[in-house]
Amino acid sequence: MIGGDGPTLGVVGGGQLGRMLAEAAAALGVEVVVADPTPDPPAAPVARDALVGGFDDPETLGRLADRADALTIEIELVDPGVLERVAEEAGVPVHPSPDTLRMIRDKLVQKRRLREAGVPVPAFRPVEDEADLLGAIEEFGEVMVKARRGGYDGRGNVPVRSREEAAEALDAVSGPAMAEEMIEFDRELSVIAVQGDGEVATFPAGENVHEDEILRETVAPARTHDEVRERAQSVAGDVLDLMDGRGVYGVELFEVDGEVLVNEIAPRPHNSGHYTIEGAVTSQFGQHVRCVLGWPLGSTALRDPVAMSNLLGDVETARPLTRGRSAGEGDPAGSDDPRPARLTGVDRVLATPGASMHWYGKREVRPLRKMGHVTVVPTEGEGREALLGTARELTDGLTFADR
Amino acid sequence: MIGGDGPTLGVVGGGQLGRMLAEAAAALGVEVVVADPTPDPPAAPVARDALVGGFDDPETLGRLADRADALTIEIELVDPGVLERVAEEAGVPVHPSPDTLRMIRDKLVQKRRLREAGVPVPAFRPVEDEADLLGAIEEFGEVMVKARRGGYDGRGNVPVRSREEAAEALDAVSGPAMAEEMIEFDRELSVIAVQGDGEVATFPAGENVHEDEILRETVAPARTHDEVRERAQSVAGDVLDLMDGRGVYGVELFEVDGEVLVNEIAPRPHNSGHYTIEGAVTSQFGQHVRCVLGWPLGSTALRDPVAMSNLLGDVETARPLTRGRSAGEGDPAGSDDPRPARLTGVDRVLATPGASMHWYGKREVRPLRKMGHVTVVPTEGEGREALLGTARELTDGLTFADR
Repeated sequence: MIGGDGPTLGVVGGGQLGRMLAEAAAALGVEVVVADPTPDPPAAPVARDALVGGFDDPETLGRLADRADALTIEIELVDPGVLERVAEEAGVPVHPSPDTLRMIRDKLVQKRRLREAGVPVPAFRPVEDEADLLGAIEEFGEVMVKARRGGYDGRGNVPVRSREEAAEALDAVSGPAMAEEMIEFDRELSVIAVQGDGEVATFPAGENVHEDEILRETVAPARTHDEVRERAQSVAGDVLDLMDGRGVYGVELFEVDGEVLVNEIAPRPHNSGHYTIEGAVTSQFGQHVRCVLGWPLGSTALRDPVAMSNLLGDVETARPLTRGRSAGEGDPAGSDDPRPARLTGVDRVLATPGASMHWYGKREVRPLRKMGHVTVVPTEGEGREALLGTARELTDGLTFADR
Repeated sequence: MIGGDGPTLGVVGGGQLGRMLAEAAAALGVEVVVADPTPDPPAAPVARDALVGGFDDPETLGRLADRADALTIEIELVDPGVLERVAEEAGVPVHPSPDTLRMIRDKLVQKRRLREAGVPVPAFRPVEDEADLLGAIEEFGEVMVKARRGGYDGRGNVPVRSREEAAEALDAVSGPAMAEEMIEFDRELSVIAVQGDGEVATFPAGENVHEDEILRETVAPARTHDEVRERAQSVAGDVLDLMDGRGVYGVELFEVDGEVLVNEIAPRPHNSGHYTIEGAVTSQFGQHVRCVLGWPLGSTALRDPVAMSNLLGDVETARPLTRGRSAGEGDPAGSDDPRPARLTGVDRVLATPGASMHWYGKREVRPLRKMGHVTVVPTEGEGREALLGTARELTDGLTFADR
């Protein structure tokens, strides 16, 4: 039943994911209130209200819970314990469950849980000190050292190719870590997996292109064999079995010699699923709203092949991403040279048939900050390759004006 | 250029059209402020702000203009003179132009203008008194008497089939009127026509099903010959030539013996264009935002055949629509039996592949009030007939709970 005062979704985090969640919620008659430490975050203009307070602030999250019929998150930086407590006190459901958030936020715990359940993952081991890391290099050869907590868009991930690099890498991740065998993958894939009320669904596997460990493009369906795509969807389904609580999960995978390995899981709509807004019958954001409220899921079928390209702040002039810096509030390179975000070249995107501009409304641009994205669907039967080329070209043509 | 503080669109009217406009604007990075006499109107939860004040209130519209980079409307009840003045004082553009709004709001002036320009319209004549009306009956046979101003969803339209009905009809429309020959049409069509900055576009012709002169369903493309659809698009293009100011225009037409006649024009996104949200590459709301801001237009191509069915308040139990009642605030039968709007049967819509639920967030249901709509696109190659059947069936299955 909808209507009356209509359900209100309380969302921890008010970034672009919250904004797109609010856009999708509106069509379904669902109001959104967000909570974010930043005043007037990207979701604010389309949310009923934007509360200002920290992701671990019981008072702010308590106010959010009091206003909501159900709680969810759009950023993992929330404190699961606080979330659990405020939901309980307000008597509202929270999805995904705080336990799942706890499990996912620690990359070592996440990977162990996956491995125990028989989900294919790269080999890994915990790293407490240099001896552990040297042991991992001994065992795996080249490794990726990952901070167990707080990594984001590649921050906290440091490749280590020799014993000599070990000490510096540990310095950079500064804290509890793990080491994973370095995977020479053929392709990076991702599957948006959906856990509803007694039903599950997976979107077709997309193919991701990363640079500096930041997602640049996604094309769907992934340009690989049917069996690999099906395997990726099936593994993503297995991952859902381990997740407690409803919601949309982004499952990133490596394709290696026709097999897939799970790289990482995000307990929320994911950048690599933005293509679903125009590309699929139901968007990942619409699905997330349905999930959290316990409503029936929509179709995850693709309507057409589709390509999505991220619009990042000042890619060309950006200094190389400092690895291992501690996480900020959801943006890489947070402190570099912010200036008012004024985007030029938009007309070309708008005038391109099948291209959709998404601008997140961020007031300031910073190097490699996610500022928006462009999605391209076919208008004259274009295939994936052409769509991806167009999406890339269009975002390359978008530039930020100088101050 | 977008960004910085981002353009803000000031919209007179905060109903469902304003709400869907705000949803579309958000993706483009455009903020929306609405003004409406009703506090907390449907657009409020997704608008940056909702000002409360009359459609002819200079103070409210002045505040709207001060906050906006461009002004537009989502309801024709605005006073064009006031709109013109506040736009001028604030130095912001307003689209469509107040002159066009003036011309369109008077059905007689609108029809004259169309006829003068050679656009095919039904025969008509002005009606000041009973003698005029009897003369029209003499000339045309059965006629439709239309109030020159304030009609909405069939209000102000009275069919007159004999001389004996003339006096009562004039009583019902109560004011300056016109009489039009009664058209025995084969089909009702509509074309959403788009006037951008130096470019125009038309969406493919949709086919409308009205009952009690309220739109019930639209299916696109219209189920008629290619030549008729093309003719409808071409006539809608001719209509644009008469419109001063950018924006989306809803052009309703009658199909008669393979020819088309223009019935009415709405200077804004139109109910019969809601199918474009899921059915077309660019939605009518996205196009309207682009138009008003002078941005390039998007593709008007259909992605698939599509059917849309309106969800009206209490169709079954509604008393017959009283003809000729003066217009209220955009809802027919405004005074009948309002009660809290609580909708049941939604799960079936949500669970139907390809169906999209749109709920406008109105707090109260009234007989025949437009409460939402359901759009259906194919997921397995369904044709128009099947889509229309599904859309109808789904909205028929939606019922409002008793108090």
